[in-house]
Amino acid sequence: MDANIPSEALRRRVATAEDAAASIRDGMTVAMSGYAMAGYPKAVTEALVRRRQAGDDLTVSLVTGANAPWLDDILGAENIIARRAPMCASRTLASQINGGGVRYVEQQMSKMPRLLRGGYFGAIDVAVVEALGFDRDGNLIPTSSIGMTHHLMDAADAVIVELNSAQPEILRSLHDIHIPAAPPDAEPIPLVRVDQRIGTDSLPVDPDKIRFIVESAAPERLGSQPKGTPLTKRIADHLFEFLELEVRRNGGVLPPFQTGFGSLADSIADAFQHSAFRDLRFFCGGITQPVMELLASGKAAALSTGGLGMSDRVEQILRDVPNIRNHLVIRNGDITNNAEVVGRLGIAALNTAIEIDVYGNVNSSHIAGNRVVNGIGGGAHFAQNAGLSVVLIPSSAKGGAISNIVPMVSHQDIAEHDVDVVITENGVADLRGLDDGERADAIVARCADEAYRGPLQRYLDEARSRRGGHHPQWPEEAFGWYRNLKEHGSMLGEDA
Amino acid sequence: MDANIPSEALRRRVATAEDAAASIRDGMTVAMSGYAMAGYPKAVTEALVRRRQAGDDLTVSLVTGANAPWLDDILGAENIIARRAPMCASRTLASQINGGGVRYVEQQMSKMPRLLRGGYFGAIDVAVVEALGFDRDGNLIPTSSIGMTHHLMDAADAVIVELNSAQPEILRSLHDIHIPAAPPDAEPIPLVRVDQRIGTDSLPVDPDKIRFIVESAAPERLGSQPKGTPLTKRIADHLFEFLELEVRRNGGVLPPFQTGFGSLADSIADAFQHSAFRDLRFFCGGITQPVMELLASGKAAALSTGGLGMSDRVEQILRDVPNIRNHLVIRNGDITNNAEVVGRLGIAALNTAIEIDVYGNVNSSHIAGNRVVNGIGGGAHFAQNAGLSVVLIPSSAKGGAISNIVPMVSHQDIAEHDVDVVITENGVADLRGLDDGERADAIVARCADEAYRGPLQRYLDEARSRRGGHHPQWPEEAFGWYRNLKEHGSMLGEDA
Repeated sequence: MDANIPSEALRRRVATAEDAAASIRDGMTVAMSGYAMAGYPKAVTEALVRRRQAGDDLTVSLVTGANAPWLDDILGAENIIARRAPMCASRTLASQINGGGVRYVEQQMSKMPRLLRGGYFGAIDVAVVEALGFDRDGNLIPTSSIGMTHHLMDAADAVIVELNSAQPEILRSLHDIHIPAAPPDAEPIPLVRVDQRIGTDSLPVDPDKIRFIVESAAPERLGSQPKGTPLTKRIADHLFEFLELEVRRNGGVLPPFQTGFGSLADSIADAFQHSAFRDLRFFCGGITQPVMELLASGKAAALSTGGLGMSDRVEQILRDVPNIRNHLVIRNGDITNNAEVVGRLGIAALNTAIEIDVYGNVNSSHIAGNRVVNGIGGGAHFAQNAGLSVVLIPSSAKGGAISNIVPMVSHQDIAEHDVDVVITENGVADLRGLDDGERADAIVARCADEAYRGPLQRYLDEARSRRGGHHPQWPEEAFGWYRNLKEHGSMLGEDA
Repeated sequence: MDANIPSEALRRRVATAEDAAASIRDGMTVAMSGYAMAGYPKAVTEALVRRRQAGDDLTVSLVTGANAPWLDDILGAENIIARRAPMCASRTLASQINGGGVRYVEQQMSKMPRLLRGGYFGAIDVAVVEALGFDRDGNLIPTSSIGMTHHLMDAADAVIVELNSAQPEILRSLHDIHIPAAPPDAEPIPLVRVDQRIGTDSLPVDPDKIRFIVESAAPERLGSQPKGTPLTKRIADHLFEFLELEVRRNGGVLPPFQTGFGSLADSIADAFQHSAFRDLRFFCGGITQPVMELLASGKAAALSTGGLGMSDRVEQILRDVPNIRNHLVIRNGDITNNAEVVGRLGIAALNTAIEIDVYGNVNSSHIAGNRVVNGIGGGAHFAQNAGLSVVLIPSSAKGGAISNIVPMVSHQDIAEHDVDVVITENGVADLRGLDDGERADAIVARCADEAYRGPLQRYLDEARSRRGGHHPQWPEEAFGWYRNLKEHGSMLGEDA
């Protein structure tokens, strides 16, 4: 391990997780490394949980790019998180947020560098960051994500480094770190290819800030990977059929893809395995096993990610794919969620959603408009800047009790103008160049669940005749669908 | 005039506006030059109106970046527009759209290059473009805007050029045209300063497409410029007070500003004249007289715009400001509304709105959710990518009958996460780093109209207790405010 700690001064800071965790006091603002589901600290986190279980008063404000269920689950279960930014990654924590016990500063990942530089999450007392080690110059070598760790360390008074020997050493070769200067000194980001390297492999850190170095060996493991279902396969088939047309229209150019999180996103990634597409490229905030399998099978040629979800199989792929450094890049969040890069690469954003309305407005974060599931994350920003913005969503949920295509979204994360194409298991609505009425007709006819097509069309007819205007909506009636669900167990109400 | 038509072949295409207009047939898709309120064709437009008034069947689908009331007014008054993209610039046309007589493909300006390249507005039969002339290589020299004229000409089967000798020749020296390649060939845009020139001064055009060249001398004139009122002055004073703090926090760096359209935007620009700020820079989709006055007085150092609203006074400023080319750049829309450039420059976006809700979601386009006023335009995209996103809005309208701060916006163009600061005549709510509850409390306490503070607070209390969740909303109650307005003449309902 000593090889990973270059100086005697730093070696003197080696401590137990307990000692390091003891420096975190009740009421502090704590930052943690991590991006997507990867690269968060584990030993100090577990020590915090043990302290709490032993009866210590300990609640903190937590800022981390990690969208890792494990982290929010074990801290949330002990009520250690009093305030959280910018994501919420577990049902436990979401439930606390929705119950009013935890304050949640939901924010887009793309905004975090700017807000952290501005100090808008308050004084950060300590940043706990996972690393493989330090390089000879004392720079930090991250693990399975880079994210916004440098911004967190810059903003923090103190840094606790967790050297995790269970993270594979090969990760060291995959990083590419380019930290753009803030305006007015910002320059163009030279990235023009998904697999291009434009930076360094380690993060600058002020050695005086490093208070503790904790050695751990805690493997990072995602939960079981969802398998596709007949439903997700039908959505994927429609997507691929659409993409084949699109590629032909575009002179054979297949765009790089962005996929989000969750079982539908994973299932779509898995389905690409059986598609006719080759040389797939992905440019994502996070990548998990199904996308890595595309690299293993040779279907994918280039992956760029902010975080790499680890599993035994992913570790095996990291070992087995020849010259993996030429095909897989782990980048910092300044680049993965950057409008400049997303726009230039012409990314095809494949977003999933909770519900979408007849005009194409998307709710990706709040059930029934008030109960947060996860947060806006990076999806809206990808959709805004993509070369092609696709929303993939099953037409209904809960055995048909819920239509995922609703008259009016109960909460809006992505505006209709940032959605090009909607795909459900029933079909594809290509909205480009359509006006609001045409969009609604296309979404209802091609995408809606059969049982809801009539009610949606009746809603549109009524909204058009009773309320009229360029964007006919009839909120009283629209929100009656949620009341129906609550009172009658189905959005169809008594007709169900 | 011949000096402006370089070849004999082109000189043979000189025709009357009537002859050119006669080539536009009923049902065609017609593109027109123009961006913001500037640079649209006038002679052919008037000839179309005369044809219609003479009894010709003539309705067209109109695609233009112009947001010019004159154009939409005179075409709209004769019911010549059957379909319009991507903006709506006049009350006449808005009324036709809201009445269902005109189809309106509302779209963000930033999306237009991509959608035009993809052919999503159908086959464009003819592009009518205003120009000062041609250069020696046959490239077109635009007038007071550049916008998306090149994309329109590329997409069109035929081009009608309107050489307008009433547009000042000095405009020729102000253009800077840089047309980024589409993905996958896109490269970084080298722009790092508001007043930097990175391109050429003329637009490529296929000479074989040019069917007619019409000579005209029609001055382009905006309507009267609004003067500030005591209300707009109070909003401006709060803005300047906030900006002074912000500049101090940022080490003295004053960001470049983006302002939108309308009387509040113009009044704020005018108010900068009496602020303490110097060396102001503006990076806008459109600039009108109040911003040009800042250049005339020496308050502003650098202006970049997609379109320059003309007036006698603006022409005078163009003549009087020494070396104006060093201070004023007219760019194409690919650059003015580009996320890459907006983000890199750290633009402070100053958007106005119809209404904003307690969480900071913004409706900038649709009254009561259904009746469009103008369209989403560029505002949302500036807000999404800005270094600082400010919404400026009077707290109430119609003598207090309407609260511009509502429980839940009836239509959403900008999501709360893309709004940093809300400013009304009552104060400033800096939302950065706040959670939803804190955002709501700040907006109600600092910005709301006094008469609505109680009702808004009661709404929040009820939504929190009855509905709860991370983002408490109670749509039935929220939309009751619009019903109150309709039934009782005030959002306060019977209590008014």
